[in-house]
Amino acid sequence: MRDRFTSGRLEAFSDGVFAIAATLLVLEISVPESGFDDLWQAIRDEWPSYLAYTTSFFTIGGLWAAHHGLFRRLETVDVALLRLNLLLLWGVAFLPFPTMLTAEALQHESDAPERTAVLFYGGALLFISCVITVMTVYAARHRELLREGVTDAELRWLNARLRPTPGFYGAILILALLAPRGAVWMFLVVSLLSALVPEGPRRDRRHRQADTPAG
Amino acid sequence: MRDRFTSGRLEAFSDGVFAIAATLLVLEISVPESGFDDLWQAIRDEWPSYLAYTTSFFTIGGLWAAHHGLFRRLETVDVALLRLNLLLLWGVAFLPFPTMLTAEALQHESDAPERTAVLFYGGALLFISCVITVMTVYAARHRELLREGVTDAELRWLNARLRPTPGFYGAILILALLAPRGAVWMFLVVSLLSALVPEGPRRDRRHRQADTPAG
Amino acid sequence: MRDRFTSGRLEAFSDGVFAIAATLLVLEISVPESGFDDLWQAIRDEWPSYLAYTTSFFTIGGLWAAHHGLFRRLETVDVALLRLNLLLLWGVAFLPFPTMLTAEALQHESDAPERTAVLFYGGALLFISCVITVMTVYAARHRELLREGVTDAELRWLNARLRPTPGFYGAILILALLAPRGAVWMFLVVSLLSALVPEGPRRDRRHRQADTPAG
Amino acid sequence: MRDRFTSGRLEAFSDGVFAIAATLLVLEISVPESGFDDLWQAIRDEWPSYLAYTTSFFTIGGLWAAHHGLFRRLETVDVALLRLNLLLLWGVAFLPFPTMLTAEALQHESDAPERTAVLFYGGALLFISCVITVMTVYAARHRELLREGVTDAELRWLNARLRPTPGFYGAILILALLAPRGAVWMFLVVSLLSALVPEGPRRDRRHRQADTPAG
Repeated sequence: MRDRFTSGRLEAFSDGVFAIAATLLVLEISVPESGFDDLWQAIRDEWPSYLAYTTSFFTIGGLWAAHHGLFRRLETVDVALLRLNLLLLWGVAFLPFPTMLTAEALQHESDAPERTAVLFYGGALLFISCVITVMTVYAARHRELLREGVTDAELRWLNARLRPTPGFYGAILILALLAPRGAVWMFLVVSLLSALVPEGPRRDRRHRQADTPAG
Repeated sequence: MRDRFTSGRLEAFSDGVFAIAATLLVLEISVPESGFDDLWQAIRDEWPSYLAYTTSFFTIGGLWAAHHGLFRRLETVDVALLRLNLLLLWGVAFLPFPTMLTAEALQHESDAPERTAVLFYGGALLFISCVITVMTVYAARHRELLREGVTDAELRWLNARLRPTPGFYGAILILALLAPRGAVWMFLVVSLLSALVPEGPRRDRRHRQADTPAG
Repeated sequence: MRDRFTSGRLEAFSDGVFAIAATLLVLEISVPESGFDDLWQAIRDEWPSYLAYTTSFFTIGGLWAAHHGLFRRLETVDVALLRLNLLLLWGVAFLPFPTMLTAEALQHESDAPERTAVLFYGGALLFISCVITVMTVYAARHRELLREGVTDAELRWLNARLRPTPGFYGAILILALLAPRGAVWMFLVVSLLSALVPEGPRRDRRHRQADTPAG
Repeated sequence: MRDRFTSGRLEAFSDGVFAIAATLLVLEISVPESGFDDLWQAIRDEWPSYLAYTTSFFTIGGLWAAHHGLFRRLETVDVALLRLNLLLLWGVAFLPFPTMLTAEALQHESDAPERTAVLFYGGALLFISCVITVMTVYAARHRELLREGVTDAELRWLNARLRPTPGFYGAILILALLAPRGAVWMFLVVSLLSALVPEGPRRDRRHRQADTPAG
């Protein structure tokens, strides 16, 4: 009963942080008083806020799906996973700050702060994707934490899905040095891919045939 | 275990986003410093904020009831529903922004921004009602996702209840071009109807007699 | 499966709204820039904010306990209870606004806005206590919604506990016309009583002896 | 069914407050408009905000772990624990205010408000750690509330882990009188220790050998 426990309440706490961080992002969007003279224009001028909101929302959505994909395969959670999970949530709850900075920098009259803001934002995304990848690799190496019936192919697939993401973010960060605006759109693409392909059914089916002939 | 999963944690995450979006709406309401000289007047002057808060709150409440009505009939959730659900939450978490814009435009000295704000708000409501309708239609066409014992009549009823809503919102959007203030009151009426008739017991009973003679 | 359902997800959504409304209250507290010259004084000057925060926090805490006391006795939730619950949450999510108004009015140099703010705040508290009382009375009159083993004495006790609260709030509102500051302290006392006597064990024991001789 | 109840919904409400308080902390971080001229510098200048955010986040994370460690050993929750839990949540939901004050005081041009802010912040941390310690001591003395199979060694260990924390905070508060900045770093260290050593597996193993020879 002591050094390991079932993951129910850990998931509830994590879901709370994910849901709040995703929903708080919209609080940063607002139209200045002067914008009410031509409100369509003012609403359009907020596009960097929508872009940053959408990117961070689907990043958190994809992270939630990956987190769920991992924890529903776990029977127990040990201290290392608990620590890593707190580190992940620390990064997720921080995300609204660089998201807002990026949206503000893209709206700024000068282009100078864009690169800095995008690098800071990308650094936060890279940190989060590294932590969830380490969590998945750790779980795959500690089979005693897993539920019965989780196959090697499933673990390989979870790894294959998560492992490239830190690499993507690293590459986009290098792009951000040259073209910060382009990098923001790339962050959006990665977030949409991570959120909208959460469990990869086609790949799955192949694995199922290879590993679980009777299931 | 891979390409489908039970809906428990998806509901928890969705409930979190619904509850937070509904509760954040009140943060937009405030009385300016000068309002404390005649506070009753200042409290009354905030009526557009109460109207917008109430409309968005019951829209989210009705959506939560529809979401619950759908998911408690599901045995498993597939990737398509997971994606649609994230899209729905993306719209719900965004709602505080057009809600606040509408409240501010109604309080603005000039009438000019009202139509724009109301069209923007109505567009967000239309988007959300379209996504939940598509989710229900999708689930009705994939009976393998449903729990045992869910009847065709129930599915027809769920559809009958949700399908008109995008039409209503479309019609109100056309009205908003001519009379934006009237459209805001119509949004309130639709939200109250959707929240306060969440499961339609009378209609239900008729269905029950037709479809489930022994139940 | 249609016109009634188990209360699990309704409780989760309600708990979310309760927890968020209780936690958002602190966002209204802040020290003005000039306060950093004498920070102890500035922290002390915020006492109306602490008073309003504490009152609303324990009001929501007591409400949560009453809500829990009711719903854990329910086997199913019907449409009427669902509607009443949404009405309750609409009031709870609104509470941060009058809470903040009251704190600001108490700090205002002029005494004029105090009475208005306290009446507005008390009106919101009265509304919430009326709705939860109606919900409890409604449930007591629809025994088919209750779990097996819920005794008449328990229902009488639940009623006896909740019914006086709207009366208290009504009396304090009359007091608020004459002495608004005194009324705020009375709201605090009522909130602490409602939160700190959540299930009345002594009274309970008497009931148990009278009604359930074998249990 | 009356004076005690299972802890499921109490944990859900508490997790909600923990998750929201932890996530709201980031809303206090922002870069002033003038900071966009040299954004790297402005991001670096926010270090007191990151320090305060991280300290409060891991304080809440460690508290959540301690709360979880206690409640998963409880079979039922009595009125006293319910009251103590509300008192704990009242302190946790308040934490964003002293956190923000400390971050602002550390960034202030004058050093004068630092000591006050840090003492206020430390007082809040001391209060929270006292309440959770009292809750654990109370539960250990009321074995009828505990699940079957909870050993004396486990209770001693829970106590041994939590009891020193109020003492630590008291000592750091005395340090804060002399060196407020040093005290803030000490608060960070204590929060990291409390969050990252949540269940102490090594110590555990010794206990297990001593108390549960067959398990």
